[in-house]
Amino acid sequence: MASRDEAGTAKIKVGIVGGTGYTGVELLRLLSQHPHAELRAITSRKEDGLPVADMYSNLRGVVDLKFSSPDNAKLEECDVVFFATPHGVAMAQAQALLDAGVKIIDLAADFRLQDTAVFEKWYKMPHTCPDILEESVYGLVEVNRDRIRNARVVGNPGCYPTTVVLGLAPLLEGRGSDAKPLVDVQTLIADCASGVTGAGRKAEVHILFSEASDNFKAYGVGGHRHHPEIVEQLEKLHGGPVGLTFVPHLTPMIRGMHSTLYARIQPEARDVDFQALFEKRYADEPFVDVMPAGSTPETRSVRASNMVRISVFRPNGGDQLVILVVQDNLVKGASGQAVQNMNLMFGLPENAGLGHVAVLP
Amino acid sequence: MASRDEAGTAKIKVGIVGGTGYTGVELLRLLSQHPHAELRAITSRKEDGLPVADMYSNLRGVVDLKFSSPDNAKLEECDVVFFATPHGVAMAQAQALLDAGVKIIDLAADFRLQDTAVFEKWYKMPHTCPDILEESVYGLVEVNRDRIRNARVVGNPGCYPTTVVLGLAPLLEGRGSDAKPLVDVQTLIADCASGVTGAGRKAEVHILFSEASDNFKAYGVGGHRHHPEIVEQLEKLHGGPVGLTFVPHLTPMIRGMHSTLYARIQPEARDVDFQALFEKRYADEPFVDVMPAGSTPETRSVRASNMVRISVFRPNGGDQLVILVVQDNLVKGASGQAVQNMNLMFGLPENAGLGHVAVLP
Amino acid sequence: MASRDEAGTAKIKVGIVGGTGYTGVELLRLLSQHPHAELRAITSRKEDGLPVADMYSNLRGVVDLKFSSPDNAKLEECDVVFFATPHGVAMAQAQALLDAGVKIIDLAADFRLQDTAVFEKWYKMPHTCPDILEESVYGLVEVNRDRIRNARVVGNPGCYPTTVVLGLAPLLEGRGSDAKPLVDVQTLIADCASGVTGAGRKAEVHILFSEASDNFKAYGVGGHRHHPEIVEQLEKLHGGPVGLTFVPHLTPMIRGMHSTLYARIQPEARDVDFQALFEKRYADEPFVDVMPAGSTPETRSVRASNMVRISVFRPNGGDQLVILVVQDNLVKGASGQAVQNMNLMFGLPENAGLGHVAVLP
Amino acid sequence: MASRDEAGTAKIKVGIVGGTGYTGVELLRLLSQHPHAELRAITSRKEDGLPVADMYSNLRGVVDLKFSSPDNAKLEECDVVFFATPHGVAMAQAQALLDAGVKIIDLAADFRLQDTAVFEKWYKMPHTCPDILEESVYGLVEVNRDRIRNARVVGNPGCYPTTVVLGLAPLLEGRGSDAKPLVDVQTLIADCASGVTGAGRKAEVHILFSEASDNFKAYGVGGHRHHPEIVEQLEKLHGGPVGLTFVPHLTPMIRGMHSTLYARIQPEARDVDFQALFEKRYADEPFVDVMPAGSTPETRSVRASNMVRISVFRPNGGDQLVILVVQDNLVKGASGQAVQNMNLMFGLPENAGLGHVAVLP
Repeated sequence: MASRDEAGTAKIKVGIVGGTGYTGVELLRLLSQHPHAELRAITSRKEDGLPVADMYSNLRGVVDLKFSSPDNAKLEECDVVFFATPHGVAMAQAQALLDAGVKIIDLAADFRLQDTAVFEKWYKMPHTCPDILEESVYGLVEVNRDRIRNARVVGNPGCYPTTVVLGLAPLLEGRGSDAKPLVDVQTLIADCASGVTGAGRKAEVHILFSEASDNFKAYGVGGHRHHPEIVEQLEKLHGGPVGLTFVPHLTPMIRGMHSTLYARIQPEARDVDFQALFEKRYADEPFVDVMPAGSTPETRSVRASNMVRISVFRPNGGDQLVILVVQDNLVKGASGQAVQNMNLMFGLPENAGLGHVAVLP
Repeated sequence: MASRDEAGTAKIKVGIVGGTGYTGVELLRLLSQHPHAELRAITSRKEDGLPVADMYSNLRGVVDLKFSSPDNAKLEECDVVFFATPHGVAMAQAQALLDAGVKIIDLAADFRLQDTAVFEKWYKMPHTCPDILEESVYGLVEVNRDRIRNARVVGNPGCYPTTVVLGLAPLLEGRGSDAKPLVDVQTLIADCASGVTGAGRKAEVHILFSEASDNFKAYGVGGHRHHPEIVEQLEKLHGGPVGLTFVPHLTPMIRGMHSTLYARIQPEARDVDFQALFEKRYADEPFVDVMPAGSTPETRSVRASNMVRISVFRPNGGDQLVILVVQDNLVKGASGQAVQNMNLMFGLPENAGLGHVAVLP
Repeated sequence: MASRDEAGTAKIKVGIVGGTGYTGVELLRLLSQHPHAELRAITSRKEDGLPVADMYSNLRGVVDLKFSSPDNAKLEECDVVFFATPHGVAMAQAQALLDAGVKIIDLAADFRLQDTAVFEKWYKMPHTCPDILEESVYGLVEVNRDRIRNARVVGNPGCYPTTVVLGLAPLLEGRGSDAKPLVDVQTLIADCASGVTGAGRKAEVHILFSEASDNFKAYGVGGHRHHPEIVEQLEKLHGGPVGLTFVPHLTPMIRGMHSTLYARIQPEARDVDFQALFEKRYADEPFVDVMPAGSTPETRSVRASNMVRISVFRPNGGDQLVILVVQDNLVKGASGQAVQNMNLMFGLPENAGLGHVAVLP
Repeated sequence: MASRDEAGTAKIKVGIVGGTGYTGVELLRLLSQHPHAELRAITSRKEDGLPVADMYSNLRGVVDLKFSSPDNAKLEECDVVFFATPHGVAMAQAQALLDAGVKIIDLAADFRLQDTAVFEKWYKMPHTCPDILEESVYGLVEVNRDRIRNARVVGNPGCYPTTVVLGLAPLLEGRGSDAKPLVDVQTLIADCASGVTGAGRKAEVHILFSEASDNFKAYGVGGHRHHPEIVEQLEKLHGGPVGLTFVPHLTPMIRGMHSTLYARIQPEARDVDFQALFEKRYADEPFVDVMPAGSTPETRSVRASNMVRISVFRPNGGDQLVILVVQDNLVKGASGQAVQNMNLMFGLPENAGLGHVAVLP
């Protein structure tokens, strides 16, 4: 029998595929406290039978589920299934779940890039369900809210793309076909720093404490999978080609992402009040906070919460715009945004189960 | 007019004195999400008029209060006042608040030590209200639950004492006057490690990032204020004198406390099942988790939550008992325990507003 | 009587003014192991009489000096005096020392900016010895080596400027008055991240471990003192005006600085082999390592050493050049560079006492 | 032809087996700067042909060697070979090297435990060369200096044992068969905290940055391989059985080890001046620093150096002695101590190549 929430409504039955990584445990943390959701299954072929709380001791006394083999998880009895898996897994299981009436939120890349050729280039595998891809919606709520409400399949955005697209959207969108853009869309720069959980929970030497602590470095300068994802979204907003240089860095913190975005202001736009533009754009957004002029956001101000904070600078009143964006890469950059999508897809209040205040200090 | 919770009951009106430190901001994080509490005032003479969220950006959009001067805070209109202040402040204001019918929870040391001579030795100030001290209750819920329900004044325990007393209580309490103790009470050892927030939010060189990071050291080996507090509580439980060596260490993490306790098993107690003893003692406690035999607790498993986790070891089956205890020093070790006390003092469910799942990773 | 080095030559007598900060203790670490230098005095008015090793326990058994009051330090008997002081101190004492034949290396800003108006704007004090400033040399060895050899007064570069100027110099210098520059000098960007020691050893809340750990933020976006210093140096190299956007960030590590530099390649320069350009420029530099194409430098690869490592990228072969530069902010960014300057000023091998291999991990 | 040092003496030819771990790279850092040693070969079957500096970028420009397959390394042409390998490797190659006149320093456990039964129990492999084991010397210089001078094979101590044995030796050694020990040798406790490099450079989840950062935990409470090693050494010093409880902890720092040792003072020894005892014992030791009474050592005070610092406390003048010991686990706890052994074995000054001042901050 279904569990019911305080109002007596049946709770949403939730399945998670691949719950042993960081986005998996974060989904568990968020959903175990969600007033309208009920965890029904969490799969891991390797850990079949292991109580989830034995792997993640923060869940002791909170989550009683055991990992189950995908074969036995009865995911088709869920209302929604989250894929917290490597790329390619959601593709393989999507059709069967849809046929059973189950909605899908994929935290990997299977339903992010609309251009399958680009997907195949960067993820080194063929896209096996282009028709599902076509119906899927890119789950950046602040851009695609209405489409998400009606989606059966959502591709949850990557962590870097969430910050970069939210930081540039007010500059690009809604300009119309004949209007000049506010900034030079050919010379955009995204200089980003990520906490180490962004690299996942993989047994790899370069993300050992002894390697990543007290250290800072760029990586993927020659090419990163999130680059085409960001560009595809920016081009949709702009309505034309966009040129972006993207340099991600690894910084010694557990959670948190900071993006410093650079855009050249067009001569025609020199009189624009960019602070006001951003404030207006995000005035009604529950999870986007435009900081007062002159203040800078810090990653810990959103630690363990679903908030994004943005600051807008124009140093010395010149032509270079500098946008600062912070998020928790595991929450708004992954699992929190996934829950936000779920809320929309099921007609729940968008912030249900997402009211956590950031943990500071 | 009073705010009301979902059931229509008037919320508890809360005041905080001295909210600029870490226990203050943590009270704000917990109370702003508490279903039955309403923040009415937070004082800081120095920051009078500053919005709280300007100092703590995690509270932007969550807490609208401004710091107010203590003179204007109308604390006497509150139901309860928390003191997140330096030692001595609560003493000075307690009588007036009690006269106005306000309950008091002091997170400093004014109402912890019943022996005023010991207080005066360690805190270098006279105790100005010994009669209030006498009526006050030491707010370690798992030991004093019933007395706290009826208390007007609670002395919230120190962070180290919370872990050490909870870790040793099952060995000392309820032995009766003629029973032999289970362990040698004269040679107890508490070897503890604290995250740096334990030192507070003070502008001091030794807790700078550049000093405390990538470093580990003992401190206060010759004497620490929490030593007499722990001893007083242990002696109450034991019903006689206790000898304790206490060595605190500073470890490079933000939050978290780990106590490794050593006790020599008495010859008569060699057959005791200590794992079972601990499990039984804490079976009904919502915030104490006795880990399965053989497993070790880690501080991150309680990060930002009110949980304590305890493991019991008897290496090689010998006579040395080793107890491991972890907590978040700002939650169960300070502000969370204070809210737990408030819940009891006002007849609320003990875990109201304290259901946060620990943030891991 | 003077100490002598292994070859029997009298050692250089060294004084340090203001040795209680991080650049001071780093000078002590480097100079105490320097084969041709002898520490004679280290001043601190506040710590007069305190053995240096009591403040910095790494120096126990290595440095026997006590801090002495500036009045008694007999600095005029030294061959060279380093100022590891707040801005303005070196200015006040420079003339007297020069009159006594003592050379000066200032690690503060008194002799960095040649434009006194700019100095006075950013440092909020008048420049009291413009004639000494005029004779002083900016101590970036790789740019001003020959002038430094003959200098009596060296202004040791700031940490950010060292990385930014070394990273951009090959693109700007030696182009001649009629040659087109290789990159657009009006849209340069320096996006930099610094370890927390960059903020000094000051009792300030924002650099506490509990504030700066597990956190990342930009600061000084609206204006930073190193901006005019960098611009002055770049303009000298270019021979004309330069436009630079400079965004520093604070990252949770003790030492280390990473600068990501962006420059737009001019159409005329599209065929330039930038990797070769950098390799050639720094081929003979003992402390600048141009990494192989495609590899990225990390800050720990230079920890506690005087090395700078640089990588050159041109993502997708486009028009955006990305230069990555790392250094230890306390060594090449401060005290190591100061010792490198001393070596030149006294005709010693440039790398004397600077052969430390970086500490990794 | 052999390289020669400054005095014209032929340098010691050094080989390293298994140089890809942290003790390997640390040997390289130390030996590459050693005035009397010359690196001749470093083996790694897996990385055959890879320049060492490609794996460890701190060695760029310093070490030109490539990893070579063990088969081709010509180790028998070396004067000494260090084994920085998993347990069991040195055993297999020792006889051949000894036959070729090569001395051996093993940083693994093959030549630490004299009792082969204990070795086989803890390391799960038979000991294949008990006769070489019998001639080998346990390489704790401060205890076995004279025997090391003449040794062909040295078992370099484990990191924990180095701190615990040095911290307890003055209490146990030289008491004679009829003298009472100063402390109760049956209830010794070693409560130790190690930086994460102590776990090696292995691709394992539990030592990822995202797992080990901002976290503190005990491990191996039920049994740790260093326990029998410590006990064997303590029993040799004491001349009889010893009881030790050993609880290691993992603390979020890269390097560093801190041991807090507890010993009960015997009634007969209450008048002993333990501070004086320790100072006298280590007065002539170049790498052991007994701190002034009342001060506490911190791990960063020995970071990247070969020093050990020790403090002695007797809280409230009672019967519980507390000894604090710090070291860098990769230097004095591993590679530095190995070089110290090499120096002795070849008649070099004991501190040759080990004069590094600790890196602080």
